[in-house]
Amino acid sequence: MYNEDRPKEECGILGVYAPGRDVARLSFFGLYALQHRGQEGAGIVTSDGEYAYVHKGLGLVSQVFNEVNLKPLKGHIAIGHNRYSTTGSSNERNTSPYLIETIDGPLGVSHNGNLTNTITLRRMLLKRGVGLSSTTDSEVITQLLAAPPETWLDGYMLDIDGDFLDLWQHRIKTLMQLAEGAYSLTILTRNALYGVRDPLGMRPLCLGKLDGDGWVLASESCALGTIGATYVREIEPGEIVRIDETGVQSIIGKKSPRRALCIFEYVYFARPDTLLEDQNVHLVRQRLGRQLARETHIDADIVIGVPDSATPAAIGYAQEAGLPYTEGLTKNRYIGRTFIQPDDKLRKDSVHVKYNPLEANLKGKRVIVVDDSIVRGNTSGPLVALLREGGAKEVHVRVSSPPIRHPCFMGVDMATYKQLIAHRMDISAICQHIGADSLDYLSLPGMIKAVMEGLTDQSRGHCTACFSGDYPVAIPQALFEEDGSNVTFTGAWGH
Amino acid sequence: MYNEDRPKEECGILGVYAPGRDVARLSFFGLYALQHRGQEGAGIVTSDGEYAYVHKGLGLVSQVFNEVNLKPLKGHIAIGHNRYSTTGSSNERNTSPYLIETIDGPLGVSHNGNLTNTITLRRMLLKRGVGLSSTTDSEVITQLLAAPPETWLDGYMLDIDGDFLDLWQHRIKTLMQLAEGAYSLTILTRNALYGVRDPLGMRPLCLGKLDGDGWVLASESCALGTIGATYVREIEPGEIVRIDETGVQSIIGKKSPRRALCIFEYVYFARPDTLLEDQNVHLVRQRLGRQLARETHIDADIVIGVPDSATPAAIGYAQEAGLPYTEGLTKNRYIGRTFIQPDDKLRKDSVHVKYNPLEANLKGKRVIVVDDSIVRGNTSGPLVALLREGGAKEVHVRVSSPPIRHPCFMGVDMATYKQLIAHRMDISAICQHIGADSLDYLSLPGMIKAVMEGLTDQSRGHCTACFSGDYPVAIPQALFEEDGSNVTFTGAWGH
Amino acid sequence: MYNEDRPKEECGILGVYAPGRDVARLSFFGLYALQHRGQEGAGIVTSDGEYAYVHKGLGLVSQVFNEVNLKPLKGHIAIGHNRYSTTGSSNERNTSPYLIETIDGPLGVSHNGNLTNTITLRRMLLKRGVGLSSTTDSEVITQLLAAPPETWLDGYMLDIDGDFLDLWQHRIKTLMQLAEGAYSLTILTRNALYGVRDPLGMRPLCLGKLDGDGWVLASESCALGTIGATYVREIEPGEIVRIDETGVQSIIGKKSPRRALCIFEYVYFARPDTLLEDQNVHLVRQRLGRQLARETHIDADIVIGVPDSATPAAIGYAQEAGLPYTEGLTKNRYIGRTFIQPDDKLRKDSVHVKYNPLEANLKGKRVIVVDDSIVRGNTSGPLVALLREGGAKEVHVRVSSPPIRHPCFMGVDMATYKQLIAHRMDISAICQHIGADSLDYLSLPGMIKAVMEGLTDQSRGHCTACFSGDYPVAIPQALFEEDGSNVTFTGAWGH
Amino acid sequence: MYNEDRPKEECGILGVYAPGRDVARLSFFGLYALQHRGQEGAGIVTSDGEYAYVHKGLGLVSQVFNEVNLKPLKGHIAIGHNRYSTTGSSNERNTSPYLIETIDGPLGVSHNGNLTNTITLRRMLLKRGVGLSSTTDSEVITQLLAAPPETWLDGYMLDIDGDFLDLWQHRIKTLMQLAEGAYSLTILTRNALYGVRDPLGMRPLCLGKLDGDGWVLASESCALGTIGATYVREIEPGEIVRIDETGVQSIIGKKSPRRALCIFEYVYFARPDTLLEDQNVHLVRQRLGRQLARETHIDADIVIGVPDSATPAAIGYAQEAGLPYTEGLTKNRYIGRTFIQPDDKLRKDSVHVKYNPLEANLKGKRVIVVDDSIVRGNTSGPLVALLREGGAKEVHVRVSSPPIRHPCFMGVDMATYKQLIAHRMDISAICQHIGADSLDYLSLPGMIKAVMEGLTDQSRGHCTACFSGDYPVAIPQALFEEDGSNVTFTGAWGH
Repeated sequence: MYNEDRPKEECGILGVYAPGRDVARLSFFGLYALQHRGQEGAGIVTSDGEYAYVHKGLGLVSQVFNEVNLKPLKGHIAIGHNRYSTTGSSNERNTSPYLIETIDGPLGVSHNGNLTNTITLRRMLLKRGVGLSSTTDSEVITQLLAAPPETWLDGYMLDIDGDFLDLWQHRIKTLMQLAEGAYSLTILTRNALYGVRDPLGMRPLCLGKLDGDGWVLASESCALGTIGATYVREIEPGEIVRIDETGVQSIIGKKSPRRALCIFEYVYFARPDTLLEDQNVHLVRQRLGRQLARETHIDADIVIGVPDSATPAAIGYAQEAGLPYTEGLTKNRYIGRTFIQPDDKLRKDSVHVKYNPLEANLKGKRVIVVDDSIVRGNTSGPLVALLREGGAKEVHVRVSSPPIRHPCFMGVDMATYKQLIAHRMDISAICQHIGADSLDYLSLPGMIKAVMEGLTDQSRGHCTACFSGDYPVAIPQALFEEDGSNVTFTGAWGH
Repeated sequence: MYNEDRPKEECGILGVYAPGRDVARLSFFGLYALQHRGQEGAGIVTSDGEYAYVHKGLGLVSQVFNEVNLKPLKGHIAIGHNRYSTTGSSNERNTSPYLIETIDGPLGVSHNGNLTNTITLRRMLLKRGVGLSSTTDSEVITQLLAAPPETWLDGYMLDIDGDFLDLWQHRIKTLMQLAEGAYSLTILTRNALYGVRDPLGMRPLCLGKLDGDGWVLASESCALGTIGATYVREIEPGEIVRIDETGVQSIIGKKSPRRALCIFEYVYFARPDTLLEDQNVHLVRQRLGRQLARETHIDADIVIGVPDSATPAAIGYAQEAGLPYTEGLTKNRYIGRTFIQPDDKLRKDSVHVKYNPLEANLKGKRVIVVDDSIVRGNTSGPLVALLREGGAKEVHVRVSSPPIRHPCFMGVDMATYKQLIAHRMDISAICQHIGADSLDYLSLPGMIKAVMEGLTDQSRGHCTACFSGDYPVAIPQALFEEDGSNVTFTGAWGH
Repeated sequence: MYNEDRPKEECGILGVYAPGRDVARLSFFGLYALQHRGQEGAGIVTSDGEYAYVHKGLGLVSQVFNEVNLKPLKGHIAIGHNRYSTTGSSNERNTSPYLIETIDGPLGVSHNGNLTNTITLRRMLLKRGVGLSSTTDSEVITQLLAAPPETWLDGYMLDIDGDFLDLWQHRIKTLMQLAEGAYSLTILTRNALYGVRDPLGMRPLCLGKLDGDGWVLASESCALGTIGATYVREIEPGEIVRIDETGVQSIIGKKSPRRALCIFEYVYFARPDTLLEDQNVHLVRQRLGRQLARETHIDADIVIGVPDSATPAAIGYAQEAGLPYTEGLTKNRYIGRTFIQPDDKLRKDSVHVKYNPLEANLKGKRVIVVDDSIVRGNTSGPLVALLREGGAKEVHVRVSSPPIRHPCFMGVDMATYKQLIAHRMDISAICQHIGADSLDYLSLPGMIKAVMEGLTDQSRGHCTACFSGDYPVAIPQALFEEDGSNVTFTGAWGH
Repeated sequence: MYNEDRPKEECGILGVYAPGRDVARLSFFGLYALQHRGQEGAGIVTSDGEYAYVHKGLGLVSQVFNEVNLKPLKGHIAIGHNRYSTTGSSNERNTSPYLIETIDGPLGVSHNGNLTNTITLRRMLLKRGVGLSSTTDSEVITQLLAAPPETWLDGYMLDIDGDFLDLWQHRIKTLMQLAEGAYSLTILTRNALYGVRDPLGMRPLCLGKLDGDGWVLASESCALGTIGATYVREIEPGEIVRIDETGVQSIIGKKSPRRALCIFEYVYFARPDTLLEDQNVHLVRQRLGRQLARETHIDADIVIGVPDSATPAAIGYAQEAGLPYTEGLTKNRYIGRTFIQPDDKLRKDSVHVKYNPLEANLKGKRVIVVDDSIVRGNTSGPLVALLREGGAKEVHVRVSSPPIRHPCFMGVDMATYKQLIAHRMDISAICQHIGADSLDYLSLPGMIKAVMEGLTDQSRGHCTACFSGDYPVAIPQALFEEDGSNVTFTGAWGH
C-alpha cells in the first residue's frame, strides 16, 4: 500500500480535572481532536478520589471506545493517551496510559516523547528487582514514579531546593533529575492531576480552562476548543503543575538554560489550529511558505501544495510570489488502513491510491508544488510523475523545511541514517532521483526566522537536530548504532 | 455527534473485465477510490467463466476485505459496490452486489440510483410468486433480470427494435422499458460484463481501458487512475455496453429525448478529480464560485471555504472577486465514526469536534465563507458562531448552489420536505437563523451556466429537481407522502 | 483434530405461538435444547401480526444471540432453526430460517431433512424466473411456497380434496405433492404458525403446550420441558397443523400407505430424554443393548460404553448379560471447536484429545465395549488401542446397530459409499482393521424388534436404508453418483 | 441462566520442555485437556533460549488460540495457563501467564492456588517501590521472583540450607519461605523450566515424559496422555524441579511435616482419568459411593447420579447397595455460555435448560440420586422437583462428601459463610428446603477412609477445611471478614 513519506509523531496526551463533569467523555472528545498524533491505540484512566478505572485498546479512539466501556470510567480526574508505534510493537502490552497500584495509591501516566537514557533507567529498575512487562519507556517512567525516592538505588541523593513538595511532586522532581530526553506527561493520582514538561520543552503541553468548572491539559491547544475549554498558557519547560480541588499550583521540576521545542511540530506534526509558544501553527506555515518563495523562487504559472499538510505553506508561497494558488492534486479522504497489497502492475501506480492529478488545473502549466518535508524520498518521485501525467509542463518541487539528514531519538519515528535520502544524496541528486525539473529546500536560518517572527522572546531555541545534527541532549552511541529503535535491556521479548 | 449537513450519495459501482489480472484486487482498489460514494457496506462478485464468487459485508472497503476473503474471488470478470444507506436499514440483508443463480447461470448486479416505480415492480414480482428477501430496489432489478421476458406477467409485450440481442441484453432492454427513475448498473454474468445507464443518465457511469489488457466500468473516472486505467468515455444515457472476449459492444437500451444528469454530482458528490460529461469537476466548482462572486459579491477582507468540499468554489470566488483566498477553518481529518454522545455542555459545541477556527487568519476580518450547499441548516449556525469565536468581524455566507427546496427520489438521501430549511424559510429568515451578517445563494440559471460553460453540446439538460422542483420523471404521490423512504409492499420487515 | 465417527444430523427446528410471551426468548432456549441437531448456525424469525423480524448467524445458539439482537425480535409467533452443514457450505448465505416477502405478506421457513428431487424443483423455479441466492433446498421450499399455486409451471393440476383451505395450507399442500424426500417444517406467516411433516414422517416433529398460553412445535420433545411446555403428541406423517388465535387445526397434506421415521434417530441422533413415536429414546437404546447382548454375547469381565451416546446401550447390555457395567473411557467435555492441527507425533494419538482410558477399571480385564455405530471406521481402531493401553486384556467391540452400508440422501450427512467401511469390508476384516479381539453388530431384525417393542401399532415401518439399502423414496441416479452432495443446477457458486 | 451449584477451581497449569518439538502446540492440547480447571482465559509463554514470546486472552483455549497467533510462539520451553476467575475481575489485566523482563532475562509464571498472606506480600512489594498492575497474587509471585533476594525489604535473612542453587532456584526457595497458602507453579526462564509445589502440596502438579524427547509438567495427569506423554510421578510437596538440557534436577524448597492435598480434587475437581497421589480419581469416587451406601443406605428401586461428575459415585453406591444403576437425568452437553436471561415464567424451570428427567426410568420408582456436593443448595431443590416431575415416587438424595460448612481461602471459589447452606441449616432443614424424601451426606471419616484406601502411605493428610474448618495454614482474620475476596491493598482499581 501507499505510505506517506512523513515522520510519525509518537503520541498525544491529555488530562482533565473537572468535578461534576463526565471526565471520561470529555477525554474521549479531547483524544478525538488529538487523533493525528497517534492512531495505533488509545486509552483513558480516571479516578473518583477512591478508586481508579482504566480502558484502553488498539485502534482509533472511535474504535477503542463505546458507550459500554466508557460508562464505568467514573470520577472527576482523567488522563488520556493516543499512541503511535512502529508496526512491530503495536500490541496490547504496550498500550497506554499505564495504571498501577503503588504504596501510595493508584498512579496513572500518559507520556509523549522518548527518553534517551532508557537503557540506564531500565537497568536501574531491573537491578532493584522490578520486573517490566513491556518495552516502552512509559512503563519505565511509571515504575520509577512508583517508588519513594529514598528507596532508589545507589543511594542517589537529590539536590532538591526549598519547595514544600507533596509526595508525588517529590517523585516527579526526582524523576526529572534522572530522565534525559523528551517527555511531556500527564499524571493521575487518587486526588490530583499533574502536568509535566521536560526541561528543554521538547514536546508540547498546554493548559486550558473549562467554563467555570475545571481544567484541561493537552498536547495541543486544538483539543481545548473541541471540549469547550479556553486556552490559558503553555506548561513551561521544566515545570510541574498540580491540579486539584485547590486549583492549579506550579513548581519548577528542573531548570535548563535552553529551550528546544521540536521545530517539526511547526513544520508538520501539529494541527494548523494549534497554538505553539502562543503563536498559530497555520500562520507559521504560511510564513515558512513565504520565506521559501523568497529563497527559492523560480518562474512558473501556478503554485499547488501536497494536500493537506503543505497547503498553508503553498498559500504563503503563492502570496509571496504573486502567483495563483490552486489545487493540483486530489486526495482520497478515506484513509481506513488496508492490508491488501496491490499486484505488480498496480504497485508502480500506488501513489494513485491516495492522489489523483487535477488535469484541468495542471495541463500545460509550469507548476510549483510545495511539500513540507522529504524523509525517505520514495513518494516524491511518483508525485512528480503524477503531476506530469496530469499535463504539467514543468514540475518544480519546493520543500518548506531544510533537508532531513539525521534521525530523531526524542520521540519521532523519522527514519534511520540509511533511510534518509538527504543523508545519502545531495539536492541535485535527489532532484534527479525524483524526476523534478528543479528542487529546492528552505534554508535552516530561513526556517528559524519564519518561526521566530511571531515570538516576543527572541532568545528561544528549538530542536533542529533532524536538520542540523545539533542534538540538544547527549545521545548514547548505542542509539546511533541501533538507529534509535526501542531496546529491551535483557532481550525478554521476541516480538 | 456532529453530522455534516450534506446530502448523501446512494452508492458507487464498478466493473472489471481483465483476463490474466487479479480482478478482485483491482476492484478493491477501485472501490477504495469510490469510497466517498458510500461507506456503509461493500462487496465484490467475480466470475471465472464457470462459477461465480462473492464476498460482501458492512463497513468501509478496507474493513470488509482482507487477503483471506479476497483470495477466493477468482476469475477474470468482477463487479463491485459501495453502499450508502440510512441508518435504519444498514443490515447484512441489504448489502450489495446481489448474486443469484438463474436458469441461465449466475447473475450479479451492482446498482447506483433509485427507481421511482419500485412499488409497482415489487408487486409485479410478488404476484409472479417471487419471494423477496430485502427492501432494496437492487434486489428488484436482479430478480426482474432473472426471468426470461416471455415469462413476465400480464403478457407485457416489448417493442424491441431490430438489434440482434443476446440473452442478457434482451432482458436488460426489457427491464429498461419497465424501470423508471435513476439507475446505473454493472452486471456480471458467467462470461460477460455489462454496463447500463438509465435513459436520462441521472447517475454517472464511465468506461476506462486497462493498459492493453482489459476494461473498467466505474461510477466516476477518479477510480480509473487508481487502478491504472485510462478514461475512454462516459456510458451514454440509455446505453447498454457488453464487454467480453470480443471487446466492447454497444446497443441502445432505451432512448430519451432529454438528459438529466444529477447536477448535485457537480456541486458536491463527485470527487474533484472526476470527469463528468468529459469536463473536470474541480473546474466546474471553481466556475460555480466565480459565478457566485459575480452574482452575490459583497465587500470583505478574505474568502474562505468550508473544508474540504467547498474549497474549489472558494478559490474561484476569491479569484473572481480579487480577494485573498485563505483557510479559516481546520478540519479534523480522523472521521472514524463514533457513537459516543457529547454531554449537554458539549452538545452546543459539537461543531468543534470537526472544525476549529484559525484565529490568525480570521481576527478582525470581514470574512466571506463559501459553502456548497445547505440542506437542513443545522450546522451553518454553529459554523458562523465558530468563525465569530475565531475573531471574524463580519461573516458573509455564500452558497455555490441554489436553495434546496425539494427532496430527491432518485437515489440521493437529501431530506424530507419538512427537514429542508429552504422549504420552510426564505433566505433572510435563514440568514437570521444561522446568525450570519449576510447570506446569499447562487441562482439556478447561474449554476446551470457555470456547468454548461465547459460542454460542447449546449442542448444537454440536467436534473435540478432538488432546487427547482422540476422532476425529470413522474414521482408517484405515495413517495411524496412517505418522503421517499423505501417501502415494503406487504410490510414484511419490521426492521 | 479428532473428529467423531458419527453421522451428522442436518437440523433442529422449532415453532412457538404464544401471545403475551417473549417468543424469541422461548425460541432461544428451545434451540439451546436442540443444539445437538446442528451447531453451525442458528436463527429466529418472529411476527407481531404486522411485521416480521429476523436474526441469524453462524455458530452455536449461545454465540449467535445476545440480549441486544434478541430484543428487536418482537411478536407472538416465532420459528427457529439450528443448522448443521458440511464444511464447504457453512456460509452466511445458507443460514436459516429463511424470511421473504410474498404477495401475501411475510413468510418464514425452518426445514429439517433433505429433498430427493431438489434438482427438478430448482429447475422448475429457475425456469419460472426466480433467482436463487443459495444452494439449500430450504430456499427452494420457501420460494415454492411464495407463489400462488395457479402460477406454478406447466399447468400442474392438483388433486386437492375437499378441505376448506386457507391460502397457506393450499400452498403447503401443493408443495407436498411436488416435494419428494424428507422434510419437517415450521412455517411462520403474518398471523399463523404451521407445522408440517413429510408423508413418510422421515424426520420427527412434535407438538407441546405451554402452560395455559401457547403452543410449541419442536424437532424433539426434549425442547418442550426446557421452555416449560408439556408434550401433546407427534405431528403425524403427511399432516399440516395450523396454530393461530383459534387454536390448533389439523388437515392431511399428503397421505402415504407407509411410515419411515429414520431409525437412526433412535440409534444415535435424538437426545435420550426425547420421545419418538411416544416412546422414550433412552429406553429404546437400553433395549438395543439388551438385544445386542442376546445376539452377540461373549464371555468377559466388564461392559463399558463409548461415552456418551452409547452409555444406555451399554447399561442394557450389562443388565442382560449379567456383567458389571462401569466406565472405561473419560471424555473431555470441553468440545469447543478448534482449528489447531496436531503435529505429526500427536496425530496418531489424536483420539487422546477427546478420550482417556480409565486404567483402574480396565487393567487386566476382558472388556466388552459397546458403541452405537461405525461409519468410516477411523476412530474405532484408536479407541481399541486406547483401551489396550489402559490395560484391557481383551477388547470386544459390540455395535448396537447393524453395519452401515449405504449413504443417506434424506438429510443425514453419513458418508459416501467409498467412505463407508462396512461397504468395503466384511465384519471380520473390519475387526482386524480396528484391532479388536472380536467385533459384532446388532442384526437388522434385532434392531427393528428392539424399536418395535415399545410401540402399540406394530404395523409401523421405519427407514433403515443406511443399513438395508431399502430406500423409502426413489433416489435419482445422479445422487448416487454425486454421493448426495448438494447440487447447484447451473453451477452459480464456486464456493 | 442456570448455574451449577459447584465450587470453582482456580486454574490449570502446564509446562513443556521439548527441544525439536512445537512446544506451543503441545501446550495448546495440554491446556485443552485441562480446560475443566478454568474457562475464563488462557495463555502460553514460550522461550527459544534467547527471547520469550507470549499470547493470552479471555475465553476457552480453543477461542484464544488459532494458527496465526500460535505460530510466533517459538522455542523449546513453554508454560501454559487456564484461568478461572470470579465475574468481577475477568478482565485482560488479570490474564495469565505473566511474562516480565528481569535483570536476569525473561521470567514467565503460571500459578494455581491462592496465597493466604497476599496482603502482606503486596505491601512488601509496594513498599519496595514496585508498582502492581493487577489484583492477582500471580503477579505478586512474579514480581517477588524478579528481585535478587538480597534486595528484598527489611533485611529479611533466609535460612537457606546447603544446596548449590542456581539464580532462580535461589529466588524460588526464598519465595517459598515468604509465601503462605496454596501454590503450584510452572516457571519459565530463558533456558529452563521449573515446577514448584507448596510445602503442603495443596494443589496438584505432576511430571510426565514425552516419548524420548522432552518433559511435561501438568496440574493433572490427564493432560499427559493427550499430548503423548507418560506419567512419571507427582511433584512432591515443597519440591522444586528444574528441567533443562541436562534433564530433571530436584531440590527441596521448603519442608513441612504435614501434607494437605485439597480433598475436593478427589470429590469433584479432577478429571476422573487423572491420578492423584498415584491413585485413579474415578476409582476413589466409586469408593466414596460405596462408603456412602454403607453409611446411609435406604431401601429404594434404582440408583442414579447427577451427571456427569457424580456418575462414578452413583455406580459405586449401586454396586455396594446391590441396586440397579441407571440414568435418570439427561444433560444438555452444549454448555456454551449464554447471557440470555430466562423470562419470569422460565426462571423457575431454569434447571430444565441443563437437565431433563428420563421418565422411562423414573416412573413409579423410589429413586436414590447421588450428588457429589451441595454448596449453596439452590439447584438441589429444582433437581428433586425434576425427578418427581419425571415420575419418581420417592427421591432420596445422597451426597458423596460431607456438608460444606466453611469457605476456602486456598484457591477454590466455594462461597462465603453466608452462602453455604450447610453453614446456615442442619441436614433435616436442608432436606426440607430441597423437598427430598430423605437427605444424607457421607461422613468426614468415611470420606477420608475412601480416599486413604488406595494409598500405601497411610500417614498422608489432606486439606478438609471446607468440611471440617481445620485449615492447614493460618487464615488472616481479614480474609474471614472479607470472605476471601481478592483485596487490593491500596484500592487502586474500582473494577
